[in-house]
Amino acid sequence: MTPDRIASAALRAKVMSAEDAAGLIPVGANVAMSGFTGAGYPKAVPGALARRMTAATAAGETLRVNVWTGASTAPELDGALAEADGIELRLPYQSDPVTRKKINAGTMEYLDTHLSHVAQMVWMGFLGAVDIAVVEVAGIDADGRLVPSSSVGNNKTWIDRADRVILEVNSWQSEGLRGMHDVYYGTALPPDRVPIPITGPADRIGVPHLECPADKVIAVVPTDAPDRNSGFAPPDTVSRRIAGHVLDFLTAEVRRGRLPDRLLPIQSGVGNIANAVLAGLAEGPFAGLSAYTEVIQDGMLDLLDSGTLATASATALSFSPGTVQRFNASAADYRDRIVLRPQEISNHPEVVRRLGVIAMNGMIEADVYGNVNSTHLMGSRIQNGIGGSGDFARNGYLSIFLSPSTAKDGAISAIVPMVSHVDHTEHDVDIVVTEQGLADLRGLSPKQRAEQVIAHCAHPDYRPALRDYHERALASAYGRHTPHLLTEALSWHARFVETGTMRRP
Amino acid sequence: MTPDRIASAALRAKVMSAEDAAGLIPVGANVAMSGFTGAGYPKAVPGALARRMTAATAAGETLRVNVWTGASTAPELDGALAEADGIELRLPYQSDPVTRKKINAGTMEYLDTHLSHVAQMVWMGFLGAVDIAVVEVAGIDADGRLVPSSSVGNNKTWIDRADRVILEVNSWQSEGLRGMHDVYYGTALPPDRVPIPITGPADRIGVPHLECPADKVIAVVPTDAPDRNSGFAPPDTVSRRIAGHVLDFLTAEVRRGRLPDRLLPIQSGVGNIANAVLAGLAEGPFAGLSAYTEVIQDGMLDLLDSGTLATASATALSFSPGTVQRFNASAADYRDRIVLRPQEISNHPEVVRRLGVIAMNGMIEADVYGNVNSTHLMGSRIQNGIGGSGDFARNGYLSIFLSPSTAKDGAISAIVPMVSHVDHTEHDVDIVVTEQGLADLRGLSPKQRAEQVIAHCAHPDYRPALRDYHERALASAYGRHTPHLLTEALSWHARFVETGTMRRP
Repeated sequence: MTPDRIASAALRAKVMSAEDAAGLIPVGANVAMSGFTGAGYPKAVPGALARRMTAATAAGETLRVNVWTGASTAPELDGALAEADGIELRLPYQSDPVTRKKINAGTMEYLDTHLSHVAQMVWMGFLGAVDIAVVEVAGIDADGRLVPSSSVGNNKTWIDRADRVILEVNSWQSEGLRGMHDVYYGTALPPDRVPIPITGPADRIGVPHLECPADKVIAVVPTDAPDRNSGFAPPDTVSRRIAGHVLDFLTAEVRRGRLPDRLLPIQSGVGNIANAVLAGLAEGPFAGLSAYTEVIQDGMLDLLDSGTLATASATALSFSPGTVQRFNASAADYRDRIVLRPQEISNHPEVVRRLGVIAMNGMIEADVYGNVNSTHLMGSRIQNGIGGSGDFARNGYLSIFLSPSTAKDGAISAIVPMVSHVDHTEHDVDIVVTEQGLADLRGLSPKQRAEQVIAHCAHPDYRPALRDYHERALASAYGRHTPHLLTEALSWHARFVETGTMRRP
Repeated sequence: MTPDRIASAALRAKVMSAEDAAGLIPVGANVAMSGFTGAGYPKAVPGALARRMTAATAAGETLRVNVWTGASTAPELDGALAEADGIELRLPYQSDPVTRKKINAGTMEYLDTHLSHVAQMVWMGFLGAVDIAVVEVAGIDADGRLVPSSSVGNNKTWIDRADRVILEVNSWQSEGLRGMHDVYYGTALPPDRVPIPITGPADRIGVPHLECPADKVIAVVPTDAPDRNSGFAPPDTVSRRIAGHVLDFLTAEVRRGRLPDRLLPIQSGVGNIANAVLAGLAEGPFAGLSAYTEVIQDGMLDLLDSGTLATASATALSFSPGTVQRFNASAADYRDRIVLRPQEISNHPEVVRRLGVIAMNGMIEADVYGNVNSTHLMGSRIQNGIGGSGDFARNGYLSIFLSPSTAKDGAISAIVPMVSHVDHTEHDVDIVVTEQGLADLRGLSPKQRAEQVIAHCAHPDYRPALRDYHERALASAYGRHTPHLLTEALSWHARFVETGTMRRP
């Protein structure tokens, strides 16, 4: 830790160990932590808190807290606290295997929330007080201003609303991040809100730092630890085919005059499929594009390097271990092309609608009528969460949902008669894509959508059964607007739970 | 028809009969009509078109068109055209019994769309060309400017995008409407959009007229016919109890400092329950409130008269036959307190989020986990449509859904294990209210929500069965996050379809 990472004398006086800092977190507190994907989360205090929890359990006591973050984090935060059975309630998004297991075992409460909604819900008092904030920063300036880390997430709100703040200063984070952030301090509660003055993805409307009164800070913990994001699988045949369908579609929309040559700002979910679509864009005819998205991952950095992407706005950097080395070494070179914002702004309905974002998100399953499930396996088991997909799909220009047509070696069809949980309603889904093809649902009634989804998206192994269902439903359902056979609608999921496959015996 | 209702000589030259005007509508056209609830829809041309269709059928020909409107209309439009089997596809909302029957018989396609999305979908070219617009106005000025009628709806978009325009000039509409409208001409397609400069419900940002080049107008049809909105049932015990729960809740939120004394702008769906809630507001402690809503109906006019409501913004006036007489006689007196806007603006996500609208909408059913069905009976049969409820529920300050706890003399429970169709996801529903009570779902996990919904909203006759379902699901579901028994989840609906009641034998 070089001393100039903590340039404020007042805050340097509050340096302490992670253990001491974790000792300041009260039992039962609402603990608001930084972190959005495996970026910018506190690296030391959560682990120390988890050890305190384990010790408490051994002593016959219970120490649990509610954990609020930007989005998912990493094993050092979610994994450690969940392993210690220390999370009472988790929000607004997670993707950790241990956390997921506890939620699905019914021993951890989970509130799966639109990522743009969290800050305002906290400001409006809907979730209770922010008892304590634990926020990673890249540095503290002499005047006490904070240089944000590799994600902004809800940090502004956490610091503004918390009574007490613990800062982790992570010297692993690149000095080059300085100036990349745009923290908007113009938000308010209604009736005092005014327009957010963003009219282009790269617009800067705030300041490059976080503000925090020194007297709120109760601990400063120096760390030197890497962000931890997973690597990406190289695009396989299925992902490449999905990407190809998306590229063909966007190209055709430009040709038909429904999209400008430079498209509109793209939003891309996280994961291998999204990364493959970005890789596909690199090979396509496009240049000078922009992104208004949540997360900049490897594929998007490649697009920035090649010039396919001119500028990108997000709330977090989420690079694989190899790419992050490259980025950190030259972060300053990206400062005029990458803007990192609070997630309230990166996902804000007002801005997403105004810019006309092209939303591309993965899904678990879609039904033949165009309803999408992004969160639940077989209707009950949470996978990760809705994340920002609802912010972008409802309010953007186009909502595109992507998935391989099958999972588990074909035992699961991603196209089903009726989804087992709805995160994106029939009113919010424009395009469904699998490696089989693309269904354009715009302007179609439910019955017409079913024909497109079955013909273009379903795997051939499941197509006859879907067609059979739809035809019988058309013939005998209670209504023919969205024809369903109520005793069969969820039978594919029930069969999977019972037999391990959706295939008929 | 006094001559000064059509003051433009150029347009007066285009006056013709409804029959002649209807003869100008091509077979298979996309016909964009005015109308939002039973207000401001064309009164004569649709009927003449229906007669043409019936004659065509008798001659062994087929004359069908696609009908786009603002929202629902009235028997003279939807009823007449549906009766003549003349509608190929209908969007974005309907509530007509004949139309509904055809849709549910599978002989009419219906696209049920967020009301704020329609204008941009048309501008973006997602629905094809506007071949012809049929728009009711209250008058035509000497310079050709149009005085809008009792609804604005999508009329600006229809006129801007249509190649040919048929105007109905309805002298029944009050002269006092002049100046009440605010038509915003600042919209654009991305990437050219700018902030919509509304920061309060009563802000005027546009002009009081519709603009239409005279050479687009192919016919002007004088009419003198009333809008046709249904009357409201006087609030019954159930509605009064629902209203009471809402009032108690809002009062408590003010007390807890989570709402200002004057609340935030209220949005209220149409219908008897919504009207009862408005009547309840009149008896409550509030004054100087505002509304940012779709429709001003009787209850809201009473609130304006009493001063409970200071100002109201909407896209349509939807008064019962009695009230409309009173309003038309003194419409000019309301011009500084009522603003009528295009529905793109009345329901705009940007404005709804900024103002912090309190959204109150009816529903068909909710499930124990807080998902809401606003549109489908037993999963398949369309009732009306989602209307603007999704615009307000997703982006507003609070989303409140209201329903009696049972329907059909208790044969249907409005609280079910799993909704048979989802229009508002678990991520979008804050409050569920029935005459039994109010469930506040904010900050709760699905399991916790179930306890609240069952205890507070379900009818006592159905409460034990819901509790039984939830407990057995908790014990044995595939996951305990949103515990469902897949083979039982829709069994209540299936039982109703089979036996006529959700009650167990």
